[in-house]
Amino acid sequence: MTDKWKKTALFVIDMQKDFILPDGPLLVDGGAAIIPNVIKAVEVARERGMLVVWVVREHDKLGRDVELFRRHLYSEKGGPTVKGHEGAELVEGLEIHEGDYKLVKTRFSAFFATHLHSTLLGAGIDSLVIVVFDAVALNYPSVSVIVDATAAKTPEVHDANIFDMENIGVATPTLEEWCNANC
Amino acid sequence: MTDKWKKTALFVIDMQKDFILPDGPLLVDGGAAIIPNVIKAVEVARERGMLVVWVVREHDKLGRDVELFRRHLYSEKGGPTVKGHEGAELVEGLEIHEGDYKLVKTRFSAFFATHLHSTLLGAGIDSLVIVVFDAVALNYPSVSVIVDATAAKTPEVHDANIFDMENIGVATPTLEEWCNANC
Repeated sequence: MTDKWKKTALFVIDMQKDFILPDGPLLVDGGAAIIPNVIKAVEVARERGMLVVWVVREHDKLGRDVELFRRHLYSEKGGPTVKGHEGAELVEGLEIHEGDYKLVKTRFSAFFATHLHSTLLGAGIDSLVIVVFDAVALNYPSVSVIVDATAAKTPEVHDANIFDMENIGVATPTLEEWCNANC
Repeated sequence: MTDKWKKTALFVIDMQKDFILPDGPLLVDGGAAIIPNVIKAVEVARERGMLVVWVVREHDKLGRDVELFRRHLYSEKGGPTVKGHEGAELVEGLEIHEGDYKLVKTRFSAFFATHLHSTLLGAGIDSLVIVVFDAVALNYPSVSVIVDATAAKTPEVHDANIFDMENIGVATPTLEEWCNANC
């Protein structure tokens, strides 16, 4: 059982102030509500010895590394999730520990133009919790999304996304189901 | 204006019998209903001199190149969209012409582990019609999805996907709006 958890990584994605706080420039409405469940999921992962991967966006102040469609949000003063600015920080309650892995991305996908896939292969990880479409494309044998520790702009969009994910073979347990399973 | 269309590619994706016909093993419910609009979009694209790109799934009979979660669907007898089998063919009414470009993919994304991006760069294409998330990640300046020439498993999922796309700066015209625009 220990071995199984050593091959599993928990992904915490985009839990940054600019996405979550009420005045965040890129607010995801359902974000704040899931913070307690994300904190709990991280706790459980640590107890089990799983690798915790923190995926965050960090951009250039002028937005030169941001998607074209968001580039107008950036200027000399900065913009959303600029490296070193407060908006790029994790929300209160979430903290990177020694031994965790922090990955900076500049696109929606954590696998896009990053070394994530090779890093996970190198670390012997074959099960992912939370990450999705690209993980399926990359053929990780096990991919789970904790439904009540993820959010979208509206509940309807979240439901539709979860439905899409179930259709491609992603497991979608609740936090409670996930905590209780395989213990 | 001619120049503009020469830099634009229309993508027709997954319009194969196994996804569209009523007894298709990977039926997308809304697929059959959009065939007339897809045919019309291709006609318009040809008239304008746009590049038409046909993206199709074609898999090994044993499914060795398919996503893990679908591999159980394959055997000596084949499975969905096997190269050379009828289910991999385009549905009636759609036909690849000389000068079109056919791209074979083995994952959801047409950009994933294919030479599509470099091909489009080489062809001077900077505007895409229909393709989505990865196209945004790759920073194509213009990405449109024709709402009534695309489909999902249910109307609700389709609506939610369109909503997501609009949120990331993708244009979502109807076929009529798209045909009328910029002419």
